[in-house]
Amino acid sequence: MTKVLIVYYSRTGNTKKMAEEVSEGAGRAGAEVELKEVKDDFSEEILEDMLNSDGIIIGSPTYYGLPSAQIKALLDRSVKHHGKLDGKVGGAFASAGNVGGGNETTILAIIEAFLIHGMVIKGTSAGDHYGPVSIGKPDSRVIKQCRALGKRVAELSEKLR
Amino acid sequence: MTKVLIVYYSRTGNTKKMAEEVSEGAGRAGAEVELKEVKDDFSEEILEDMLNSDGIIIGSPTYYGLPSAQIKALLDRSVKHHGKLDGKVGGAFASAGNVGGGNETTILAIIEAFLIHGMVIKGTSAGDHYGPVSIGKPDSRVIKQCRALGKRVAELSEKLR
Amino acid sequence: MTKVLIVYYSRTGNTKKMAEEVSEGAGRAGAEVELKEVKDDFSEEILEDMLNSDGIIIGSPTYYGLPSAQIKALLDRSVKHHGKLDGKVGGAFASAGNVGGGNETTILAIIEAFLIHGMVIKGTSAGDHYGPVSIGKPDSRVIKQCRALGKRVAELSEKLR
Amino acid sequence: MTKVLIVYYSRTGNTKKMAEEVSEGAGRAGAEVELKEVKDDFSEEILEDMLNSDGIIIGSPTYYGLPSAQIKALLDRSVKHHGKLDGKVGGAFASAGNVGGGNETTILAIIEAFLIHGMVIKGTSAGDHYGPVSIGKPDSRVIKQCRALGKRVAELSEKLR
Repeated sequence: MTKVLIVYYSRTGNTKKMAEEVSEGAGRAGAEVELKEVKDDFSEEILEDMLNSDGIIIGSPTYYGLPSAQIKALLDRSVKHHGKLDGKVGGAFASAGNVGGGNETTILAIIEAFLIHGMVIKGTSAGDHYGPVSIGKPDSRVIKQCRALGKRVAELSEKLR
Repeated sequence: MTKVLIVYYSRTGNTKKMAEEVSEGAGRAGAEVELKEVKDDFSEEILEDMLNSDGIIIGSPTYYGLPSAQIKALLDRSVKHHGKLDGKVGGAFASAGNVGGGNETTILAIIEAFLIHGMVIKGTSAGDHYGPVSIGKPDSRVIKQCRALGKRVAELSEKLR
Repeated sequence: MTKVLIVYYSRTGNTKKMAEEVSEGAGRAGAEVELKEVKDDFSEEILEDMLNSDGIIIGSPTYYGLPSAQIKALLDRSVKHHGKLDGKVGGAFASAGNVGGGNETTILAIIEAFLIHGMVIKGTSAGDHYGPVSIGKPDSRVIKQCRALGKRVAELSEKLR
Repeated sequence: MTKVLIVYYSRTGNTKKMAEEVSEGAGRAGAEVELKEVKDDFSEEILEDMLNSDGIIIGSPTYYGLPSAQIKALLDRSVKHHGKLDGKVGGAFASAGNVGGGNETTILAIIEAFLIHGMVIKGTSAGDHYGPVSIGKPDSRVIKQCRALGKRVAELSEKLR
């Protein structure tokens, strides 16, 4: 069965809600989904989950136009698997305080890290092209985009594994 | 008197409206403002205006996450002044069809070009940090952001000339 | 047979040389390769080629941290196929005058446009992660990276079509 | 006297060497320079230094196309001064393992954070446009670029304070 890992950091609950909807979308598409929250001190387990998944989706609030330091710490430590994530599918999403506040650059930062791992990214021609963006609390538009991301990553992971 | 040049490309009128508001903001801050539209075939005059201004602000619709080819053609041709725009102040704004649709990357693309010219960019800690973004028709929030950009560039240009 | 289209703009011949090596890599991997040069005035044919290919790779010199206006014009006009390129594989490469001169942002600009088309991008964990970069004339390192890009896109296109 | 703060994270010593050269450049331009290393656990003092400086320059190795998590943690915690760094001058530099390895995106990530603080960034029309990049150990070219960055930030900080 295709495994999709969804990792997020959330303080206000907005990114967490997005993660749950991404998870819903991936699950409905038939994937086995693992949903993990990153805290200030995260366990080695998440790094192992990355290695054992076909698709990896990371979500973060927008902190100065980039993912939170906790997400960055996870990416930095993922170097222990460098080369081994090659060919896996990646996806990213972000919440933000306002339009033009750095949400796209946050998503692209995660995508760049995934490309450096040799991973595979798929955009979408409809909606939030790089990945779902929520301005404040996720509304129905955002929920739709999140589910679409989960579905997209699950289906591509299925094809590529 | 401090001169601020505002250059834009617009098809639906949204970016044009933003440009007018940026112009309003720069004018109120005391700058002499030149507002120029880029068409498919633009005159050499705009390039000369760039050279003769203290601040240059460029606006574009979001076409595939980047400024329109017409704006890019202007940037490419600005190479004739390479080195001579060093120290001038730059600013950028973008209209887009939807949130997460590439508006930030459009603005950053223009900012990157300005940095390569050795120009000076100022963000803002309030609102649209990299530059104003309009999702569809500019509303009162966007108008405020546009005027703030005009003011910001005019004031910094005044200080630096 | 898997079709890979390679489109480039070149003035000094550096990007052209890179395109030929990308083409070599894709061909060796078993793809049917089409190599097309974009000029100031390009034919409608290239847009049709995009529609009829499984993989599309675009290369450009670095002009102000972005692809040339000619490449941008092609991307803008590709809007006529918006939605129809969804799921195709993309890749990008760039030549530049110097390190830190905007080569990565040029490649990422093309990748962003592809993501907005809903296309699929694969990075590499070895070498030029986002896509091959040549500082000046392509040397043996660059040639290797270009061939690897061609191979990577051909193989992924084969899997996904 | 104009104060320039240079903050860096370094593991191999390459970024540290760059920081020293940036410091040299800022000092020669007449600024009072503070050079601070960020470790896994950094003191509150650096955040106060940010507040008390006219110019802030941050350097990092390239970890997955972005600054290290330690630098990101500093940026995240700088939110306590949000709004108060507005108008200060910023600059960034990065070391990397190879060309096309994410060095530009690392520098731009820092620049984006600075723009969100409302800070002022100046590129250069000569050399490493966004900020100095070292591929491996800093050579004479890199040293020259680093000194130029220090000088540029010191001079602009002087003008703007």
